[in-house]
Amino acid sequence: QSSLQIDGILDAGVQRIDYKGTTVTGIGGNGSSTSQINFRGTEDLGGGLSARFRVETDWNVVSNKANTGTTAASGAAPVTGSTFGNGEIRVGVAGAFGALDLGSVNYNTLGTYGVGQPFGTAIGSGFRAVAINDAASTSSVRAENALKYVSPNFSGVTVSLYKSFKQTKAGTGVAADGNYSSTLGAYDQYGVQELGLNYAGGPLAASFSTLKQDNEEVGAGTAPDYTVNTLGVNYNFGTAKAFFLYQTVKGEGVRESKLMTLSGTYTLGATVLMAQVGSLNDDVQDKKDKMISFGADYNLSKRSAVYVRYESIDDKLNYAKNPGSIAGTAGETTRTRTAIGVRHSF
Amino acid sequence: QSSLQIDGILDAGVQRIDYKGTTVTGIGGNGSSTSQINFRGTEDLGGGLSARFRVETDWNVVSNKANTGTTAASGAAPVTGSTFGNGEIRVGVAGAFGALDLGSVNYNTLGTYGVGQPFGTAIGSGFRAVAINDAASTSSVRAENALKYVSPNFSGVTVSLYKSFKQTKAGTGVAADGNYSSTLGAYDQYGVQELGLNYAGGPLAASFSTLKQDNEEVGAGTAPDYTVNTLGVNYNFGTAKAFFLYQTVKGEGVRESKLMTLSGTYTLGATVLMAQVGSLNDDVQDKKDKMISFGADYNLSKRSAVYVRYESIDDKLNYAKNPGSIAGTAGETTRTRTAIGVRHSF
Amino acid sequence: QSSLQIDGILDAGVQRIDYKGTTVTGIGGNGSSTSQINFRGTEDLGGGLSARFRVETDWNVVSNKANTGTTAASGAAPVTGSTFGNGEIRVGVAGAFGALDLGSVNYNTLGTYGVGQPFGTAIGSGFRAVAINDAASTSSVRAENALKYVSPNFSGVTVSLYKSFKQTKAGTGVAADGNYSSTLGAYDQYGVQELGLNYAGGPLAASFSTLKQDNEEVGAGTAPDYTVNTLGVNYNFGTAKAFFLYQTVKGEGVRESKLMTLSGTYTLGATVLMAQVGSLNDDVQDKKDKMISFGADYNLSKRSAVYVRYESIDDKLNYAKNPGSIAGTAGETTRTRTAIGVRHSF
Repeated sequence: QSSLQIDGILDAGVQRIDYKGTTVTGIGGNGSSTSQINFRGTEDLGGGLSARFRVETDWNVVSNKANTGTTAASGAAPVTGSTFGNGEIRVGVAGAFGALDLGSVNYNTLGTYGVGQPFGTAIGSGFRAVAINDAASTSSVRAENALKYVSPNFSGVTVSLYKSFKQTKAGTGVAADGNYSSTLGAYDQYGVQELGLNYAGGPLAASFSTLKQDNEEVGAGTAPDYTVNTLGVNYNFGTAKAFFLYQTVKGEGVRESKLMTLSGTYTLGATVLMAQVGSLNDDVQDKKDKMISFGADYNLSKRSAVYVRYESIDDKLNYAKNPGSIAGTAGETTRTRTAIGVRHSF
Repeated sequence: QSSLQIDGILDAGVQRIDYKGTTVTGIGGNGSSTSQINFRGTEDLGGGLSARFRVETDWNVVSNKANTGTTAASGAAPVTGSTFGNGEIRVGVAGAFGALDLGSVNYNTLGTYGVGQPFGTAIGSGFRAVAINDAASTSSVRAENALKYVSPNFSGVTVSLYKSFKQTKAGTGVAADGNYSSTLGAYDQYGVQELGLNYAGGPLAASFSTLKQDNEEVGAGTAPDYTVNTLGVNYNFGTAKAFFLYQTVKGEGVRESKLMTLSGTYTLGATVLMAQVGSLNDDVQDKKDKMISFGADYNLSKRSAVYVRYESIDDKLNYAKNPGSIAGTAGETTRTRTAIGVRHSF
Repeated sequence: QSSLQIDGILDAGVQRIDYKGTTVTGIGGNGSSTSQINFRGTEDLGGGLSARFRVETDWNVVSNKANTGTTAASGAAPVTGSTFGNGEIRVGVAGAFGALDLGSVNYNTLGTYGVGQPFGTAIGSGFRAVAINDAASTSSVRAENALKYVSPNFSGVTVSLYKSFKQTKAGTGVAADGNYSSTLGAYDQYGVQELGLNYAGGPLAASFSTLKQDNEEVGAGTAPDYTVNTLGVNYNFGTAKAFFLYQTVKGEGVRESKLMTLSGTYTLGATVLMAQVGSLNDDVQDKKDKMISFGADYNLSKRSAVYVRYESIDDKLNYAKNPGSIAGTAGETTRTRTAIGVRHSF
C-alpha cells in the first residue's frame, strides 16, 4: 500500500533582536523550530523492501512577502520565495541493504548537531553563528543533487555516506568551459562528501559526521576546501538530559575553529527548561566567541506549546549573521535574540 | 485531536475588460471569488482552549506564468509568483479570553467590506477601485508580521485589535540607520493599527473598522499617514438581502474621500441575483466616481455555480486600477468588466 | 459529494549527459517521467453533470534551488522556481455535452505524442529535441488562459477543440498600443488554436492533433505562424506493443520538418523493455536528425519501479536543447543521455 501523509509545524511569536547595538522588535517565525509542511509517503514493496519519499516546504508563517519572494531594495538581487519543495526533498528505496535516497537530502551533520544540543537550529542553538553545517555562505543543511546511503542498524550503529557531484565553470580558467549542468547541479556548485556514524542505545545517543566541501575551480576559485567535523552526544538521566557538542572547521588560510558547548534540559511536568553555554575559538583570526542561551517550553498538548527563548552571543569573530540586514554599531560585538511564541505541529 | 483540513476555491471564466476605451477579451480567473487552497487545523487543548492555524495559497487557475512568476517586460522588476503561503497565514490560540493569532492575518476591514456588499472583492465589488482596505499601493487585505486579537462574543458583539510593527530605514534620513529587520517585517514596512467592532444577530449584521497606517519615515518619507474608516451593514429579509457600505479615507493632502454604496441580493430557487450602486467623492481632487454593477449565480450545487458579473465604474478620480497594464485612451474614464464563468469549492 | 484527491510522481536517478562532446554526471530528476503533485477533485452534480478540477505542481526532486528559483549567473534574467500550480491547471464542467475546461489546460497534442511512443516526454522520447508540442522556444505542453472542449465519446472517438486568445503589444508597431492584458494572457502572448481527434478501441489507439500558433504582431513580430500536425498510433499485441509517430511542423521560412519514429515495448513479467528509432528532416535547413533510444523498467510494485534509459540523437539540425547550458564542442552534433533511477507514484 502507498499512503500520502501530510504533517508540519507552525511557529510564531514576538521577537526582539539586538544586533550589535541596534534593537528591532516585531512578530517573527521559527523562534523554537522551522515552520514547515511535509508530504511524505512509504510503500511496502514486500520482502522487507520499501519505497519512500519526503517533500518538505519551509514557509514563513508571518510574512507573505517572504513566501512570495520580492524585489529587494534597489540594486540588490531579487529575493527568492518560500516555494514548494524548498526543504528536504528525496525519493528512495529502503531494505535489508540499508536505505538509498536521492535528492536534496539532509546531511548527517544536521542530525549530529541535533544530538549535541537541544535547541534544534532555532534561537538558542547557535546555528549559523557559532556552529555551521557546511561552509557555504548560507551554511546549508543539505546539498543539491545528492545521493545518501544509510546502512542497516548494527546493534544501534548506523553508517551514512553522502555525495553531491561538483559542477564547475567560472573557476576553471577556461573561458568557454561548459563542463557543468544546471540540471545535474547548479552553476558552480561545490562538491560534497560526508561520512557519518550514529549510535543510539538506551539512555545514550552519539553521532559523528565528517563533511568535506570541495571548492577547487568552483566560482572564482578562491574559496579553500573545507572540512567540518562534528560530534554530538547526549545522555538521558530521566527528567534531566545532558548534551555535549564539539565541532572543528578547517578552511586553509580562512578558518581554523573549534567549538565546544554543554547543554541540558530539565522536565517538570508540562514544562521543559533548557540551557546551553559554549565557546568558539578561531586560530586564523585568533579571537573567541562566547554563547549562552536559555529556553522554556510549556506543553499545552503533545502537539502544541508556548515557549520562550533567549540567546546572547559575544561574536568577536563576526560569524553570527545579521538577521535581516540590521546594521550594527562599530565596536559592539554582541547579538542577542529573545522570543516568546507558540508552536503547533499537525 | 489535531486534524489537517484542506479546502479551496477555483473560479475561471471568459472575461472582457474595457479599460477606458481599450477592450481585451480572454480567459481569466477570479470573476466572482479568489481562487485559493487552504491548509487549516484546529487542536482541542482541553479547558475550552484550542490551537489553530491557516495557510492560504492564492493561485491563478488559468495562467502558469502567473503562478511561476516571470521576468516582466524589459526594464521592469521581476514579477513574483503565486507561491505557497501568499494568502492569509496565521497560527494562534483561542479560548475563553478570545483568540490571538500571529502571522499575516486578514484585517477586520476585509470582513467589514464583506458585510457591506455582496460581491466579495471580485468583479462588481468595486474593491481596489472605489473601495480600499489599506492605503498601500496594492490595498493589501492584511499586513506582514502582524498580531490580531479578537474578543469573545458578547451577545453577538466581537472586538478586534490589530497591530503590525513599523520597520523604517531609507526614510529616516540617517545614512547608516539600521533600525529595521527584514526578518521581523519587510524593509520600509509601514506600521498598521486597526480597531474593529462586529455585530451579528438575527437578520442584522454590522461591522465597523478603523485602520491607521503609519508611513512616517517609511520609504521616501513622503507618504502621509492614512486613516481608513469602513462601515458595513446588511439585513436579511429572507429571499432578499439589503446592504449598505460607507467608507472614508483620509491621507493629509493626498486623499479625502467618502464612499457610499447600496446593494442587494435576491434569491430565486437556485438563482441569486445581485446589484450595487455607489459613488465616491474626493475633496482633494474635487471629483466623483460612480459605480454600478450586476451579477447572477446559478448554483449547480452547494459547492459549484456558474455565474455572470458586470461592473461599470466612471472613474474620474483614476482610482480604478488598470487590470494588467492596459493603456486607456485620453479623455475616457470608464472601466467596464464583464465575466461569465464557473466557480467550484472543495 | 466533493472529494479532494492528492496524487503524484517522484522520479530521480544518476544521469550522464554527453552534450556534443562535453560530459557531465550527477543526480538528476525526471529520467523516466515528470515529478509532480496533483490536487484534483470531482463533484457529482446530478443528471450526469459533474464539476472537476486539477492543479498540478511540477517540482524538482533533487534540487532546492530549482524549486526556489535563483538569481542566475550575472547578467542573466532571474530563474523562475517550481511554484505551486506551474503544471496543468484547470476547472470545468463535464456532462452529456462533453467536457469544458478553463485554465492552462494540456494540449491534445501532448496526448497524441503519448499515443505515438512509449517514453512520455522523458529521456528516450525525443521530446523538445526531434518532436515538439508547440513552436514556442520552450515547446510548451499547454497554453496560458485557455479553453478546451472535449466531445462525448462516440464509439471510441472524441474530438477536442482548444483556444487561447492572442495578446499583442510590442509587435503591433503602434507606440502606445495597449491592446493586451497580462490578466487575460501574458504580455505578447501568441494565440493558439488546436483540433484533436482521438480513438481508442480494443488493441488500437490513434490520435491526431493539428495546432496553429498565431505569432502575427506578437513580440518583435518576426516569428512566423506555425502549424504542428501530430499523428500517434499504437497497437497492443499482448506482451508486445508497437507505436508509430509522425509529425510535421511548418513555420514559413524557418522550419519545414517531418518526423517519423517507430517504437515498441515488450513485457517480461515485472520487466518492461522499450526502444525507439526515428528521423527528422527539415527542408529549410536541408539536414537530418537521427535518434535511437532504449529503456527498461523493473516494476517493484504497481507504484514503484527502478529504470534505465538511454537516448542518442545525432542533432545536425541543432534542435536538441542543451540540458542546463552545457557548451558543446564545435563540429560535434550528438547528444546522449543515460539514466538509472527510481520512480515512485502515490
